[in-house]
Amino acid sequence: MRELGADQLDDLARGAGILGTGGGGDPYVGKLLAREAILAHGPVTLLDIDEVPPDATVVPVSGMGAPTVLLEKLPAGTEELTALRALEAVLGRRATHIVPIEIGGMNSMVPIAAAAQAGLPLVDGDAMGRAFPETQMVLPTLIGVSTTPMALADDKGNTLVVDAVSNLWSERIARAACMVMGCQVSCADTVLRGDQLRDGLVPATLTLAEDLGRAVRLARAEHSDPVAAATRLLGGIHLLTGKVVDMERRTTGGFARGRALLEGPAGTLELSIQNEHLMAVRDGAVVATTPDLICVLDTDTGEPVTTEAMRYGLRVTVIAAPCDPRWTTPEGLALVGPRYFGYDCDYVPLAGVRS
Amino acid sequence: MRELGADQLDDLARGAGILGTGGGGDPYVGKLLAREAILAHGPVTLLDIDEVPPDATVVPVSGMGAPTVLLEKLPAGTEELTALRALEAVLGRRATHIVPIEIGGMNSMVPIAAAAQAGLPLVDGDAMGRAFPETQMVLPTLIGVSTTPMALADDKGNTLVVDAVSNLWSERIARAACMVMGCQVSCADTVLRGDQLRDGLVPATLTLAEDLGRAVRLARAEHSDPVAAATRLLGGIHLLTGKVVDMERRTTGGFARGRALLEGPAGTLELSIQNEHLMAVRDGAVVATTPDLICVLDTDTGEPVTTEAMRYGLRVTVIAAPCDPRWTTPEGLALVGPRYFGYDCDYVPLAGVRS
Repeated sequence: MRELGADQLDDLARGAGILGTGGGGDPYVGKLLAREAILAHGPVTLLDIDEVPPDATVVPVSGMGAPTVLLEKLPAGTEELTALRALEAVLGRRATHIVPIEIGGMNSMVPIAAAAQAGLPLVDGDAMGRAFPETQMVLPTLIGVSTTPMALADDKGNTLVVDAVSNLWSERIARAACMVMGCQVSCADTVLRGDQLRDGLVPATLTLAEDLGRAVRLARAEHSDPVAAATRLLGGIHLLTGKVVDMERRTTGGFARGRALLEGPAGTLELSIQNEHLMAVRDGAVVATTPDLICVLDTDTGEPVTTEAMRYGLRVTVIAAPCDPRWTTPEGLALVGPRYFGYDCDYVPLAGVRS
Repeated sequence: MRELGADQLDDLARGAGILGTGGGGDPYVGKLLAREAILAHGPVTLLDIDEVPPDATVVPVSGMGAPTVLLEKLPAGTEELTALRALEAVLGRRATHIVPIEIGGMNSMVPIAAAAQAGLPLVDGDAMGRAFPETQMVLPTLIGVSTTPMALADDKGNTLVVDAVSNLWSERIARAACMVMGCQVSCADTVLRGDQLRDGLVPATLTLAEDLGRAVRLARAEHSDPVAAATRLLGGIHLLTGKVVDMERRTTGGFARGRALLEGPAGTLELSIQNEHLMAVRDGAVVATTPDLICVLDTDTGEPVTTEAMRYGLRVTVIAAPCDPRWTTPEGLALVGPRYFGYDCDYVPLAGVRS
């Protein structure tokens, strides 16, 4: 158990931005929301998974939509709490703990804001160990936990509660509603009991994000290589350092989709995007695939570059790091592997990384 | 108070099909559902509006979607009750009465089925006095009653509860969800207290539908003109008798849209469709517009022809009849007049009909 205050948010947002593999929404916006909530309601209590009672009602809250939309349509800051209250109404009981659904940009920060607003402790972990674009792509799906009831709230005050026959159906229905609600809504879903956290979460990822953000900041202060520091901490590999020379972007089906082409002295790298970086192809060969983490960092500063911030001329370094091992099981790959996303390619383990 | 049994369903479905102005879903499918439910659970008690206690919880149930889809994707028959139960869960109280949201084809019949299944009395009336394509197009909107909470259920078992800031927002969100749920779902929404029925419903429209269906049947049996009998009973006017010579049809945005061209000895008539017949143009002149009823009947039999059943070569007679007078107020026309649907034309009262 420790306290999470406004001073820790810079490191945490930076690290979460890296772990978010380009997705999860702009960490800057999330940081403002979390800071505002902490200043208004005081610091948040952060608990290890082991410190949560087995009968606890742990509720992930998050933003859903296309990060490209979030750039122009800022949240009101009240949506997560509205979604949480709508969920509690159908559950018939109150949440006892808040947890991030994913580690990634804004979606690591809004649970901090919601925990502060609701006066609830926050659990150190998340349901992916990275960011994924779709709501069924969570470890709870692998252990048979339903993502529904799923409550959605928008900035206008509309709410929605989905109760679906499968987590995929919930995604379809919620995504369609999300699109018409402005492609940016907040969710409370995938309720976990305290005794399901070990199987349903990747533990200590908020702490990992903070460590990662701090390592990058310290390397920068010491004039050493911040990208190398991040790569080391993640046990990852270097894919390419270069310049963004082409960027194809469209917001369709409720997602930010696209393709980025990078050129560097060592070759070219093509990234495929659905909110997150999903595939990396170096000089024609697949070198990293979902569910492993493909992270784009500013080469000089080590700051994470989200997919919606990628633009021509940006000098970046792309690294890859292994995902939580549960994602590379057959069941995990069926849910989040390359073929689910329509790539005609199997999962390729990262070269030179111990799994 | 009277009993509604399986024997009355033929007349009722025929009349409701006529009042549905082409929409509301195939009355044949609805009739099968109602008959099945009455055979299993017994006849339904039909109450006049005045017989409902002021504190009653009156719940309209209906199907939502594109009638073109309903032709191929039949309901499971349990959706209305599932939607009703989901609505009751968020209301925190049980429905005491069921009522149709519209008089039109299937949507006059599924409330009978739901009332039989739920063991509840049915109220003789509906919230439109005809059929309209969108969920906010109900008299309760005009008196400030919210269509939400709105519960949706599909044939697969998915449910959804919308709580919106306006009835238009509820329509947008529900329509988007409906489309992804297969363009055919069932709804329970627009809850009315007993003392709101006088302002929120058009009274006795189930009885009107039955009278209308009977008049057509009897005229046929007596070898007199069934279409003339229907026109007389509705206080309507004859627009054209002719043949369908062109039919343009597409299912987009969750609706069946299109255009039908009729030719007869007296001229041509063009009908514009969004689930229902919305505009009638005779030889280039607008002769009937929404919200008045534009009804297409088989010329020989007087049977209603739904918009999805319109096809080349069909010999039909088009009649028009005045809508409930609340629809032609400025507020009514803002909600359901020609301009709402994008027609560059004001409401045209029916020629030669007392308003």
